[in-house]
Amino acid sequence: MLSKILNTVVATSVVAIGLQASEVKLSEDQMKEATQVYFDRCAGCHGMLRKGALGPSLEPKVSQGIGTDALKIIINDGTPGGMPGWGESGELTPAQTELMAKYIQIEAPMPPEKSMADMKASHKILIPVKDRPTAPEAGAKNWKDYFAVILRDVGKIAIVDGKTKKIVSVVPSGYATHITRTSASGRYMYVIGRDGKASVIDLWMSEPKNVAEFRPCNDARSIDTSKFGEWKDKYAVIGCYWPPSIVTVDAETLEPIKIVSTASYTVDKNVYTREARVAAIIASHIKPEWIINIKETGQVWLYDYSNVKNPKITMVEAERFLHDGGWDLSKRYFMSAANARNIISVIDTKEGKLVKNIPSEGTKPHPGRGANVDHKTLGPIWITGHIGSNDIVAIGTDPVGHPENAWKVVKKFALPGKGGGNLFVKTHPNSKYIFADRPVNPDRKLQTQIYVIDKDKLEVVKTLPIDEKYLKSADPKVKARGPVHFEFNADGSEVWTSIWGNKLTPSPILVYDSNTLELKNVIDDKRLITPTGKFNVTNTMNDVY
Amino acid sequence: MLSKILNTVVATSVVAIGLQASEVKLSEDQMKEATQVYFDRCAGCHGMLRKGALGPSLEPKVSQGIGTDALKIIINDGTPGGMPGWGESGELTPAQTELMAKYIQIEAPMPPEKSMADMKASHKILIPVKDRPTAPEAGAKNWKDYFAVILRDVGKIAIVDGKTKKIVSVVPSGYATHITRTSASGRYMYVIGRDGKASVIDLWMSEPKNVAEFRPCNDARSIDTSKFGEWKDKYAVIGCYWPPSIVTVDAETLEPIKIVSTASYTVDKNVYTREARVAAIIASHIKPEWIINIKETGQVWLYDYSNVKNPKITMVEAERFLHDGGWDLSKRYFMSAANARNIISVIDTKEGKLVKNIPSEGTKPHPGRGANVDHKTLGPIWITGHIGSNDIVAIGTDPVGHPENAWKVVKKFALPGKGGGNLFVKTHPNSKYIFADRPVNPDRKLQTQIYVIDKDKLEVVKTLPIDEKYLKSADPKVKARGPVHFEFNADGSEVWTSIWGNKLTPSPILVYDSNTLELKNVIDDKRLITPTGKFNVTNTMNDVY
Repeated sequence: MLSKILNTVVATSVVAIGLQASEVKLSEDQMKEATQVYFDRCAGCHGMLRKGALGPSLEPKVSQGIGTDALKIIINDGTPGGMPGWGESGELTPAQTELMAKYIQIEAPMPPEKSMADMKASHKILIPVKDRPTAPEAGAKNWKDYFAVILRDVGKIAIVDGKTKKIVSVVPSGYATHITRTSASGRYMYVIGRDGKASVIDLWMSEPKNVAEFRPCNDARSIDTSKFGEWKDKYAVIGCYWPPSIVTVDAETLEPIKIVSTASYTVDKNVYTREARVAAIIASHIKPEWIINIKETGQVWLYDYSNVKNPKITMVEAERFLHDGGWDLSKRYFMSAANARNIISVIDTKEGKLVKNIPSEGTKPHPGRGANVDHKTLGPIWITGHIGSNDIVAIGTDPVGHPENAWKVVKKFALPGKGGGNLFVKTHPNSKYIFADRPVNPDRKLQTQIYVIDKDKLEVVKTLPIDEKYLKSADPKVKARGPVHFEFNADGSEVWTSIWGNKLTPSPILVYDSNTLELKNVIDDKRLITPTGKFNVTNTMNDVY
Repeated sequence: MLSKILNTVVATSVVAIGLQASEVKLSEDQMKEATQVYFDRCAGCHGMLRKGALGPSLEPKVSQGIGTDALKIIINDGTPGGMPGWGESGELTPAQTELMAKYIQIEAPMPPEKSMADMKASHKILIPVKDRPTAPEAGAKNWKDYFAVILRDVGKIAIVDGKTKKIVSVVPSGYATHITRTSASGRYMYVIGRDGKASVIDLWMSEPKNVAEFRPCNDARSIDTSKFGEWKDKYAVIGCYWPPSIVTVDAETLEPIKIVSTASYTVDKNVYTREARVAAIIASHIKPEWIINIKETGQVWLYDYSNVKNPKITMVEAERFLHDGGWDLSKRYFMSAANARNIISVIDTKEGKLVKNIPSEGTKPHPGRGANVDHKTLGPIWITGHIGSNDIVAIGTDPVGHPENAWKVVKKFALPGKGGGNLFVKTHPNSKYIFADRPVNPDRKLQTQIYVIDKDKLEVVKTLPIDEKYLKSADPKVKARGPVHFEFNADGSEVWTSIWGNKLTPSPILVYDSNTLELKNVIDDKRLITPTGKFNVTNTMNDVY
């Protein structure tokens, strides 16, 4: 009775002991360094437990088969599949390259769990609610046109006035902030670091400051807020990569309320997956729900927060390796990229179900939130680019008015030149154009220009090269990358992009007229170190893109 | 940055290696034997990962502190808190007692996960749907009054005709079957073994047989079926202890459809719990929902199966260590015992929320499904006994008609004599009495009688001692225990109880008139080895208790 399982249990534990005994060849200090490097450089694509996601599995059974020498080459040089050459780019030393080649052949240490008590230890109310302004202060009259600009490598957020183009404050944030989101009213700006630290900035202050901070996760990518009905401005939600979980907090104080684990079974082969990371979260405007991508399992969870301690979760099977996504024009359909599977999963958030998994017809779609156009002949369409190929595709999103176009690629066109490298597309109803970047294309010329797509023609009608004077680098080993990420000002008349420089060199934000394409302003300030994502208050609160 | 976590990760893995290296003193054969014994005797109360549930934590940090000698005494003698004396009772040899005292000081081996492919390997359709009867066969005319009787220690189910009192068939089942449940129509009887093997018996056959079997779990306690609307007879659900999960299957074939992990955070301290075992499951008659107790987290999940691949789950915070429970008289409220916490959690399944956690006013409530009475002065009440004390309590369940009595203990009375040991209470609308057993009371006299409780007076009005001739044992070391578990026939005129004997000795089922209390029949058959639970088709399909 049960002998088969028992054999498995015993065999598994014996093997585990054997592996640990024979392979642990790193000192405690080396383990510490390697674990930090792994977290910084590898975990995002390969997973904390190394089971693979956007990148392949790095479990010892795989990596031991490849061997130290070949691993060193891969880590140093990168691969055509998208693996960066960490040694070549100077981001890892030769010693670190060798260390990592060894480290990934050792069983991954299980990262620690976090209980509510562990989380609460990190919770700080910096400015109590009673001490905050009750109306926008005199200096904050333009707050609805503020931009939160991520200063990635220095762990800060610059709040920039969209009218004056001046920095109104720089506040500390978590490590390598991934995104920012606003409250439903726009008053608060929520920030999530890759290290799992969330913070909230009060934009009603003349000099906006963090009013609370909280670090529920060791690794995170997403944050959003309650945007429906009586719950507006009441809750925020933090999506943890590790521990894989959804943490609901009080919107004003970040005080934790509820933790839900996302560990479950994959949608394809129904395999249990401890590392079921929370990728994009988006807040419904028509229900008290967050729509939550669970990356490794491929489920989209419709998370009803109306009874906050007793959530109701609809677990929709979509596609594995869900990452980013955004609303269609009607804000009913969530368009979500399973980037490692070249699929756009469409979720009908009104009916609470998958509409379709659509092949994106390119390699590794990375929409950010995508770009929406009400096209004169095709009807409402949603647009994404790709990291791994130069394809830009438009998907019809109006099954009632344009059923012939709905839920398929209705138009596909190419960015000029070879290779992908696009990270973001963005538009605004008041611009004739969609803007696309290409910061991870290896070709220097292709990397350093803006691609301007005509909304009607659906093709690239112009490229805007970035003048070399904006691409300065004080580090001779590392060049400034080209423009990354776009955001419009509140009325859509301007589009802003960042120069992705390095830690040693301030880099500007370039402001273009969104219709004439004229470079109107260069926001150049020594505090702007590695500006990347930019989030305008009005556009973020209304999900305009 | 992050150095604190990294230190923890490294320290944890170093400690784990250290422990494994210094403490593994058992041979592979000994590990295998101990793992089997642990599964059979210990895991139910202490958990596969030994974090404790009804029994305390046995993690190495605890057990190493107690030490081998003291552990041997505890395992041999038992404790007043309810730990059985496994050595004293002859169920473990002295060598096994010593082995287990050592084994529990070693880090628990992580039991294997099971993917859908692993599960499917165990799936067998023994008789295809097309080859099954389309109406009850000639020999099956009494099928609605059949009893499924668990023959615990031989891994079989006896189907006994409630009218003729004859065994109509004996079919194999999983190991130490925990419960059986019927389909909504009653035609199929579902069986779940403690080894996680589910089987389904077709009662329309003249000689009922298993028509399908499936083993999705390594350890399980619960199974139920879809009982609402268009989904009647469509799905069954298996609750796994390990891997902790909910497995939905096709009701006719047991073909697996969906797996959902139950691992999440506890309701009290919000601690992540891999071992979040599925205890009682009950099927709603008013919604397409199963109500599912998650033991270690203390959550009750309202699991909407209407979109079977995309379930909607309301996660209600109740109390940790939820185990068994049943409906109130209206079948709206689920009365669920958190037995290690001496709490009855009441779930309003219409509103989908916790009504109240009620102190049960006794030690370790164990209702089975409880007993419902429409009392002439108190109104509808639900009754439970306790394992750890002799208290029988009645809780008011009618907040509209009898708000003064609702959701509190309105009557408490004692079984005569010292100590608890009650496992089940049971009644039927057509009986004047509630019947209670006491098989785990150490006192031989108290253990071997039936306690008859008057429904109006709510006190024990009679005890029915079991004649020694029914308590025979061919094993001189192990006595037959007294009566265990009650079930009524379809019209409620008879109440049946089992003598809990041992593997060497057939034991009878005793049939009493449910009102005169006269012993009407003794079902004595050499095939009745260790009969325990009994489930009448009509009462099970209608949730009459």
